[in-house]
Amino acid sequence: MQAFPKPQTRLWLLALLLVLPLASPAAEVLPSWKDGPSRQAIEAFVTAVTRAGDKDFIPPAERIAVFDNDGTLWSEQPMYFEVLFALDEVKRMAPQHPEWKDEQPFKAVLENDQKALAAAGEKGLLQIVGATHTGVTTAEFNANAQRWLAKAVHPRSHKPYTEMVFQPMLELLGYLRENGFKTYIVSGGEVAFMRAFAEEVYGIPPEQVIGTTFVTQFQNKDGKFSILRQGKLAHNDDGPGKPESIESIIGRRPVFAFGNSDGDLQMLQWTTAGEGRRLAGLVHHTDGQREWAYDRKSNIGRLDKALDQATGNKWVVVDMAKEWTRIYPGDPDQSHP
Amino acid sequence: MQAFPKPQTRLWLLALLLVLPLASPAAEVLPSWKDGPSRQAIEAFVTAVTRAGDKDFIPPAERIAVFDNDGTLWSEQPMYFEVLFALDEVKRMAPQHPEWKDEQPFKAVLENDQKALAAAGEKGLLQIVGATHTGVTTAEFNANAQRWLAKAVHPRSHKPYTEMVFQPMLELLGYLRENGFKTYIVSGGEVAFMRAFAEEVYGIPPEQVIGTTFVTQFQNKDGKFSILRQGKLAHNDDGPGKPESIESIIGRRPVFAFGNSDGDLQMLQWTTAGEGRRLAGLVHHTDGQREWAYDRKSNIGRLDKALDQATGNKWVVVDMAKEWTRIYPGDPDQSHP
Repeated sequence: MQAFPKPQTRLWLLALLLVLPLASPAAEVLPSWKDGPSRQAIEAFVTAVTRAGDKDFIPPAERIAVFDNDGTLWSEQPMYFEVLFALDEVKRMAPQHPEWKDEQPFKAVLENDQKALAAAGEKGLLQIVGATHTGVTTAEFNANAQRWLAKAVHPRSHKPYTEMVFQPMLELLGYLRENGFKTYIVSGGEVAFMRAFAEEVYGIPPEQVIGTTFVTQFQNKDGKFSILRQGKLAHNDDGPGKPESIESIIGRRPVFAFGNSDGDLQMLQWTTAGEGRRLAGLVHHTDGQREWAYDRKSNIGRLDKALDQATGNKWVVVDMAKEWTRIYPGDPDQSHP
Repeated sequence: MQAFPKPQTRLWLLALLLVLPLASPAAEVLPSWKDGPSRQAIEAFVTAVTRAGDKDFIPPAERIAVFDNDGTLWSEQPMYFEVLFALDEVKRMAPQHPEWKDEQPFKAVLENDQKALAAAGEKGLLQIVGATHTGVTTAEFNANAQRWLAKAVHPRSHKPYTEMVFQPMLELLGYLRENGFKTYIVSGGEVAFMRAFAEEVYGIPPEQVIGTTFVTQFQNKDGKFSILRQGKLAHNDDGPGKPESIESIIGRRPVFAFGNSDGDLQMLQWTTAGEGRRLAGLVHHTDGQREWAYDRKSNIGRLDKALDQATGNKWVVVDMAKEWTRIYPGDPDQSHP
């Protein structure tokens, strides 16, 4: 009986193992992307900047890739998911706030009064976000966000929100990381809300999530430490706020940036204005069948100025309807509809 | 003539190469640390939290280690090095500011008038920092900091400032990184000033440097993009500001923290109050011969409350004079003075 191959055979096996990964056919890259212009541009970029000796080579430490979240990595209709979270939180918290029964905009939320809610406008929305996002410790807020994400479902798809992430973008994140990129979220969403699911869903750790922030305060109550979220905005991570937070927090200009709306314009401009080869991309919501179709006139995720800029600057514009074979994880392959 | 060994020999060599790193005796860890209480505590911590199956095991993603900079990673006497930078910058910029000849605190700087400078107090210092750190783009400020770091020398040692980093702490940073820790700077210093040397000197990339920040503004001048540093503080990364920025930027509680002054107290408290095994340490400046000796009464890097807390909480307190065999890179080994 011979439990193991002879030493010499074992060495040959070892050598084979070392060689195999190079010789085996590469697994298909970006399987949910049709072989269209966007996929070709992304693959050409990654191939060039990671090939030692290429004139466009970028050292691994500088391979910073930034992604907007709402509308870029997951859906954002009929309303930003974080706003839907805030509305649900008002209902959950209502028993502790009997005064909300008679106080707008909370009354409108509790009575599902869409008209009164719309009338409350942006000011009302900020009140709702403030009431549900601040006045608690960072640990408490994280627990609230986690609880909601685990239970809540989207009003149309009836799926958990974390299943409404874009499968092609998950593949893009993975493809970039396999090629030595550090993937970041840079989003108008509140940073702690996104961190509650970004690591599990996108594989993006908390320290690579950048977003809107509230002023916080370190507290020491008899040796019990906490960090209180206060009702004052520290940074609005939208529009010009995106390159500002990138410079402040990453301290290095990205080489790859993806967004979907005018709020991402400055991030894409800042990225592509750097020296050397860069890629900027936009997810264009063209698929009214499988997702939503909207751009220049939408109140949520308006894509107008950035779409004009994309044409002039040869940015990648992903036509969701034409270029993605599936939208969400688990969707059937619709390569040939 | 045989250019290469025979195939079979090559395979044996290959096998040997694969086995060697495991079989060779481990290189000495922390060579500039005497085998004293601090080194023992650090090694015991790292061994426990990285050993699979150990009750104290910490997954790699959670191995966040934070370090203060001034007085912890490099010296800070007779004044924070960044202040010395600001004073030199006033002199460099003086030709563009003829009004400074007659205007305090700038007049005092230009005339090396220590008394008038001291009289200008903290307000004067803030004016000097503001004038030299803001009103320029982030690219311009980085160039200014780099230029100074490349040329300036310390008034006593006559060494470049970047050679006044602590060799034992460089070894500690490397030891932690080899064990899967992500090393961060969390310092009262201005973030862009530290980033100008942190990657080269400490091996800490810009995105792992957290510090005091100014408000910035994204600018688009006829399609030329820049980020302007404005004369308004955005975040003061000292004392309670440290756990606040850790929570906001890293989003994960550190498991290892090192500081040297009362400004680090809250960072150490926040770190050690987390669940599971943690290590907090203080560099105690006890070496008036090789560096400087100061603690409870110093205006720079005062260590008073944190020293009391260290005793009660069994934090590591590094006695520089007794525990470090060398202070700066290139110093002779002084294990047996």
